[in-house]
Amino acid sequence: MERITSRDNEKIKQLIRLQTNRKARRESDTFVAEGVRLAQEVLRCGLTVLQVFATEEGVRRCGGVWEALCQKAEQAYLIHESLESRISEVKAPQGVYCVCRIPHQPLSELASAGRRFLALDRLQDPGNMGTIIRTADALGADGIIAGEGCADVFSPKVLRSTMGSAFRMKIWTVEDLAQTMKRLRGEGFGVYGAALDDTAVRLGEITFPEKTVVIVGNEGNGISDTVLQSCDGKLFIPMKGEAESLNAGVAASLILWEMCR
Amino acid sequence: MERITSRDNEKIKQLIRLQTNRKARRESDTFVAEGVRLAQEVLRCGLTVLQVFATEEGVRRCGGVWEALCQKAEQAYLIHESLESRISEVKAPQGVYCVCRIPHQPLSELASAGRRFLALDRLQDPGNMGTIIRTADALGADGIIAGEGCADVFSPKVLRSTMGSAFRMKIWTVEDLAQTMKRLRGEGFGVYGAALDDTAVRLGEITFPEKTVVIVGNEGNGISDTVLQSCDGKLFIPMKGEAESLNAGVAASLILWEMCR
Repeated sequence: MERITSRDNEKIKQLIRLQTNRKARRESDTFVAEGVRLAQEVLRCGLTVLQVFATEEGVRRCGGVWEALCQKAEQAYLIHESLESRISEVKAPQGVYCVCRIPHQPLSELASAGRRFLALDRLQDPGNMGTIIRTADALGADGIIAGEGCADVFSPKVLRSTMGSAFRMKIWTVEDLAQTMKRLRGEGFGVYGAALDDTAVRLGEITFPEKTVVIVGNEGNGISDTVLQSCDGKLFIPMKGEAESLNAGVAASLILWEMCR
Repeated sequence: MERITSRDNEKIKQLIRLQTNRKARRESDTFVAEGVRLAQEVLRCGLTVLQVFATEEGVRRCGGVWEALCQKAEQAYLIHESLESRISEVKAPQGVYCVCRIPHQPLSELASAGRRFLALDRLQDPGNMGTIIRTADALGADGIIAGEGCADVFSPKVLRSTMGSAFRMKIWTVEDLAQTMKRLRGEGFGVYGAALDDTAVRLGEITFPEKTVVIVGNEGNGISDTVLQSCDGKLFIPMKGEAESLNAGVAASLILWEMCR
């Protein structure tokens, strides 16, 4: 197995770019799964693995997982511990990094992929994004539709907070969210936009149509006008206290709970 | 108004201690509300204000809020901009800091303060803690009971993510959570502990008793055995996907939603 000790190695440089730079992920159509837990999920979900990197400590930690990764990957590298502070995105690195192909869901299959979708309009906080994907997986949503301006699903921070759910959930990343919503309405979906408007239909009272999409918007500004205009209606989460709003991740979780019950 | 320019000023040193050190907050029974939004909430909720500090920029930003604070506070200080990088806990400080008395709820009034409580057992993440307090406020819970080992409600991080709800919610901080739960059962409360146990009663199916407390536990380890033994039973959030658990803040939010509907 090839050993890498220099930080100037081209493969290490690309690995760091993939960890830190969304454009590098887009251009190469790859991302990095860091740590033992995500490596296990990579194997379990059958992702395409291009390269794996591990420190000696990482190999020990992974045990059988490392061998399985090496069999799957086109290339495997042992890297020197000293490189890790540059590569890792966490405080206590576990010494294992898998470069995987980003999984894509064909847009043509969206309408037939299920009956319960959550759509996200410019949701920016990576922690919220990860929590929402994890919750959607746990509560049994059929997929997530992420519009332009959302946090990158395959960034290290989002991946960490999904706890692996990002590899299991079907996630569509779409350029024109309003257009996608119109298309789903044409396919018989009821489309609702979560909004702070107490004249709207109320979560907990509405019976969702057989096929439903609910959109959750940006943390500070909600759903954009164009996207809101593509909806059948607005959806309000009733609040009793004096708090003016809910955290976007919490709002999405309550919607998922009601939508998938 | 007194001006402070030196970082060696004793009042500045104490302000920094209050921002960074839980023990300093406990010993002095005070905390710092930073920023314009929290300053407004301090006034709205009628907290006791001991000292206020602002930079010239902070005074301009606050407008009428600064005057109202100065009338309420025992002491007001203008501080030099150069001190702010040491005092502030955020990247873009707004230049206003209120030192307030920590509000305490008498334990003797707990049982008569409402019918819907959320209890937290060693919940450690400040972001989760803040989100839960904000959600409990929005959904109309009657109070939160925080056991030993929880993140400090009056730490800057928790306060920021509560968006001011920490001043509105009734929050009891108790030393012996198991004992408090036993006492509430004696007062006619049904006490449930959220647990990853699918033989337990299920959220969404159970009808909660007239008076209910649900306990949510530590992010990694759940509820401690002693506290679990003080419950009437365990409560399970049904999951459909392959995700093994929900984020603690999400779990608490779903419980609050069902408990307060």
